[in-house]
Amino acid sequence: MSLKINLNADMSEGFGAYDIGADDALLDYVTSANVACGFHGGDFRTMHRIAARAAEKGVSIGAHPGYNDLWGFGRRRIVMAPKDVELMVAYQIGALQALAAYSGIAVTHVKPHGALNNVAAEDADVAMAIGRALKTVDPALIYVALAGSRMEQAAETLGLTLAREGFADRQYDDAGNLASRSIPGTVITDPAKAREQVLRMVQHGEIVAMSGKVIAARVDTICIHGDEPTAVAVAQAVTRGLAEAGIANVPLTAMDLAR
Amino acid sequence: MSLKINLNADMSEGFGAYDIGADDALLDYVTSANVACGFHGGDFRTMHRIAARAAEKGVSIGAHPGYNDLWGFGRRRIVMAPKDVELMVAYQIGALQALAAYSGIAVTHVKPHGALNNVAAEDADVAMAIGRALKTVDPALIYVALAGSRMEQAAETLGLTLAREGFADRQYDDAGNLASRSIPGTVITDPAKAREQVLRMVQHGEIVAMSGKVIAARVDTICIHGDEPTAVAVAQAVTRGLAEAGIANVPLTAMDLAR
Amino acid sequence: MSLKINLNADMSEGFGAYDIGADDALLDYVTSANVACGFHGGDFRTMHRIAARAAEKGVSIGAHPGYNDLWGFGRRRIVMAPKDVELMVAYQIGALQALAAYSGIAVTHVKPHGALNNVAAEDADVAMAIGRALKTVDPALIYVALAGSRMEQAAETLGLTLAREGFADRQYDDAGNLASRSIPGTVITDPAKAREQVLRMVQHGEIVAMSGKVIAARVDTICIHGDEPTAVAVAQAVTRGLAEAGIANVPLTAMDLAR
Amino acid sequence: MSLKINLNADMSEGFGAYDIGADDALLDYVTSANVACGFHGGDFRTMHRIAARAAEKGVSIGAHPGYNDLWGFGRRRIVMAPKDVELMVAYQIGALQALAAYSGIAVTHVKPHGALNNVAAEDADVAMAIGRALKTVDPALIYVALAGSRMEQAAETLGLTLAREGFADRQYDDAGNLASRSIPGTVITDPAKAREQVLRMVQHGEIVAMSGKVIAARVDTICIHGDEPTAVAVAQAVTRGLAEAGIANVPLTAMDLAR
Repeated sequence: MSLKINLNADMSEGFGAYDIGADDALLDYVTSANVACGFHGGDFRTMHRIAARAAEKGVSIGAHPGYNDLWGFGRRRIVMAPKDVELMVAYQIGALQALAAYSGIAVTHVKPHGALNNVAAEDADVAMAIGRALKTVDPALIYVALAGSRMEQAAETLGLTLAREGFADRQYDDAGNLASRSIPGTVITDPAKAREQVLRMVQHGEIVAMSGKVIAARVDTICIHGDEPTAVAVAQAVTRGLAEAGIANVPLTAMDLAR
Repeated sequence: MSLKINLNADMSEGFGAYDIGADDALLDYVTSANVACGFHGGDFRTMHRIAARAAEKGVSIGAHPGYNDLWGFGRRRIVMAPKDVELMVAYQIGALQALAAYSGIAVTHVKPHGALNNVAAEDADVAMAIGRALKTVDPALIYVALAGSRMEQAAETLGLTLAREGFADRQYDDAGNLASRSIPGTVITDPAKAREQVLRMVQHGEIVAMSGKVIAARVDTICIHGDEPTAVAVAQAVTRGLAEAGIANVPLTAMDLAR
Repeated sequence: MSLKINLNADMSEGFGAYDIGADDALLDYVTSANVACGFHGGDFRTMHRIAARAAEKGVSIGAHPGYNDLWGFGRRRIVMAPKDVELMVAYQIGALQALAAYSGIAVTHVKPHGALNNVAAEDADVAMAIGRALKTVDPALIYVALAGSRMEQAAETLGLTLAREGFADRQYDDAGNLASRSIPGTVITDPAKAREQVLRMVQHGEIVAMSGKVIAARVDTICIHGDEPTAVAVAQAVTRGLAEAGIANVPLTAMDLAR
Repeated sequence: MSLKINLNADMSEGFGAYDIGADDALLDYVTSANVACGFHGGDFRTMHRIAARAAEKGVSIGAHPGYNDLWGFGRRRIVMAPKDVELMVAYQIGALQALAAYSGIAVTHVKPHGALNNVAAEDADVAMAIGRALKTVDPALIYVALAGSRMEQAAETLGLTLAREGFADRQYDDAGNLASRSIPGTVITDPAKAREQVLRMVQHGEIVAMSGKVIAARVDTICIHGDEPTAVAVAQAVTRGLAEAGIANVPLTAMDLAR
């Protein structure tokens, strides 16, 4: 049986005069795009543009909802009731669906952004709230969830299709969580190291934590961050590594996902 | 053949701690609700709540998109390229569709708000841009347009279903446009006067302008503004007037609209 | 020696089309106004208007800075680095100083709003950050601080003039903190009860907590919330109570404050 | 008598995760910085940082107020009453004054941004409104105005100190206005051409318009735009040109300005 994996990246996070990330370059390597929806970044123009480019390239798209916080880029936790988070996520999914209609493609997954993703990973109520937004707006939406997190449990509880996410360019702690960006060296900028981490995840279902500890991790999709200057080099190394290992890099919709 | 008309009101324009309008009271009188979508007013909570209340009461809902301007309540023109207006409107429609999904109802019309409505009435490019947003997101959407405006022409050009709008509580100039709010007396606060204006529109297809001039005006839907303190009294007088005259007050989706 | 106290209220929290609070009515009773600065509520028009009205009435004004969160009315904690809080507070003070210049009055105090006030009460780093903003922008600014909180300590550490704040219309827990708004009954809406709480604070330096426990509390200023429908009745009862007891109700700048 | 000129650049227009312009590099060439104040770009962190860097380098600072429109970068006209523009400008000046206090320097000029500058150049009411904001907040503030515009007249009428502005890197029409950015070639990216335009302005008080027509133009300050990739090269060429011609490049406060 041949191996396959999905590569995803966060996109559409600039807006107006503000450019951020390497969206166009990354669309040549990833097979799914997480599209920021105007709350932590992005606007209707970037959403429309990325959906159009993704459609051209056969890249599947998902909503990348965040807190309503341009100044903090969605990286600051805003303490909100879970029901409010749910409706905020639904709003952003719907907005992207409308802009994806311009390209005739469907929104097929949802991956929360930044602080919202961190909160959802640890807080079952928030993880469930996000899942309910998916289930209400479109029950076929794939819930992209940090492997082993509360989000994974929420997807299972709600009967949603689940994509377990790993990271190409971030280090892990022994519990399988992402080590904080504030710890030096936790962002992997060496393409060779990112490639090795990805191949180990896909071929062996393992991650090597910062401490050297080997953690079991089944992942369906691997994120490459676009906001590092090394993002494109990492994406190249990872996709080459996958190709040389005979592993197919496919849209999230072509993965065999748990439900 | 019996006469029928639709009554609409703008709603969902408060948000967070801010209350505005008499949404709940008006939902007992109007048969269509224009739901603000978070740009000039409203947020995902008000959108969700109004959609739920409308569903309970058999009131049809539409998006009420505006400029991104909470401080100006969407009443200040922001000079934007037509394509940007188009995508901005699409975004807001999609956001409401997602929140309406919670109540199992569809978004069936679109009526631009404030300065955006004023610009679209006069500027063919903007009127077309808004129409294209409807056509792309859902070609069955009804375009609510000031009778006789560029929006009416745009709906016809694009083959969209059109609802010509009149106003119960605003005076008209001789050209059939709304007289500016800044002219004293142009907002009708006397319920009897509003009732008379509505009956004349529905029964005779006429509006009496400020000058006394009688203008031909075929209207499918009549707006009652919710932000005047007299809004509920006006709504009561109008609905009673319609009932006494044997005119049915029906959702926009039950009107026989041009396409 | 005759007793005196300052009464303060939060103001300027509406903006544009949104009205909130009973600013004009309360300006007849309070002697200091806390002016929202456009982040959690308010805009340059409300700031300008309240400063002008306060100047007419001899009411002293202060900045009422909050998180940048109109949707949450500054009642949702946004997790920010203390240095960012400091600069955010400085920004808001400066903005108010410029608008107060129109009325020829100075900004003489600062009282944080909502969630920012709650965080500062408990978190020494945030309390110090706010204090440093005052010290940098104008070292004569009075730091209005919940009696017994980290803010009080910060004011003392930084050598700032301190006004210890009590509340006319909120119940306290045994530790002397405000009982959460989410607990029914913790907002005092009975004017007689508010009057009694205020007189006890001023005459005896005591608060009776929800449990009945008597807590020592020296206060220099007492807040009346403007967003309750009973706000004006509470303000009337309190000011009458003070007058009948021979207690002067004076601007914060006329109190004898610790430094 | 030796010649002198001021070079200014717009700065502080990024915020949070968004970087824009070449602020740090340009601070080595210009002698005045126009600091965006959080409305069209910038935030309290960028304002604080640029004020600190300017203080280190002996660069004078001014407020660069814009419309409240991050999505449009202040380049979209928002139709506002002149009084609202006035208070909006006052607010932004005050905010910057507070953040400049951290570096012990004063805000010494004001230059409106983008669409606000374009409107003020042509609309006497808006030009006067901005001038009144300066006069009220600090009558010593220098009004930086497009040479020959309504702003220049407003400064004179109000008795404000005036700095007439020219542009190093933009072409002019025959009326002495900036040719629209939308016309190809109107942004000068060739450093030699920018240098020539600057020297002609300073040495001969002339600008050569796109058509070749020579226009008289007395300027006190020359703007270099930071958002072009060629900005630093232009700044280098211009400052070298000035140095070689023996023209001093001095802060706005060191120019001999009309009042």
